[in-house]
Amino acid sequence: MDDNDDAKFMRMAIAKARQGMAAGQSPFGACIVRDGRVIACEHNVVWRTPDATAHAEVTAIRAACKAVDDIKLPGTTIYSTTEPCPMCFAAIHWAAVDRIVYGASIADAQHAGFSELGISNVDMKRLGGSPVQIVPAFLAGEAVELFNQWLADPKHRVY
Amino acid sequence: MDDNDDAKFMRMAIAKARQGMAAGQSPFGACIVRDGRVIACEHNVVWRTPDATAHAEVTAIRAACKAVDDIKLPGTTIYSTTEPCPMCFAAIHWAAVDRIVYGASIADAQHAGFSELGISNVDMKRLGGSPVQIVPAFLAGEAVELFNQWLADPKHRVY
Repeated sequence: MDDNDDAKFMRMAIAKARQGMAAGQSPFGACIVRDGRVIACEHNVVWRTPDATAHAEVTAIRAACKAVDDIKLPGTTIYSTTEPCPMCFAAIHWAAVDRIVYGASIADAQHAGFSELGISNVDMKRLGGSPVQIVPAFLAGEAVELFNQWLADPKHRVY
Repeated sequence: MDDNDDAKFMRMAIAKARQGMAAGQSPFGACIVRDGRVIACEHNVVWRTPDATAHAEVTAIRAACKAVDDIKLPGTTIYSTTEPCPMCFAAIHWAAVDRIVYGASIADAQHAGFSELGISNVDMKRLGGSPVQIVPAFLAGEAVELFNQWLADPKHRVY
């Protein structure tokens, strides 16, 4: 896939995060794509469920596993509006996703108030011995804008 | 809680893992306990769902969040038959569980064939700056026995 495709799918993840924000959820979205086809596109539903594990990436992996009726998702890319947290990174590993493309960083999420474990995807990959490819800071400006919009809402809640 | 309580709840997690194995699932169980009361006790349901993220700990956190209608689980201990993988460790962090008591190690799970990211809970805690307490290798012999029993089943499947 070329950068145009990456941009298209990242912007779908960003739009999905906006949908979640409009529904009172946290500002995170993720899409899982195989061969140019979107298998799953979800936003964070931690508050709605309630479920501490229902980050956008985990929710998208669950939906994708169900959609393809498999616990492994080889040949896929996950587009995540924010660098996957260590939970989501390891979920991506278990699901055997080939490639992570992310926008904002874990540091950006911490800056917005989320109590992230401060371990980068590059460090998780190196320490854990994961083969996943990582494309960092992709359309980062547009992704960080989600946090700005969300922080401007007086009803926003962190965790 | 004293060691007798810890042993009681760890053996519940081990029994739950055995239930899962009998149902064709992988040999992992986890219980979440608050003030001596079990809030959730689940086994891995990755194959059944199918869902790459449905480890015993994540499944127990989901059930516990639902049971108490909250995304945070302060004042709880999670008893896990195997050292939580990085996904589960970070899920425990997000849920604000106070304490992890685990039996077998990630290395034991790798030895049984599971493609674990090889990052220990102690390293995750240190690198991520988590306040969670960790009690390692608790009833480890009984927990490792789950893997032996599981490996002896010709129908066992790894991931």
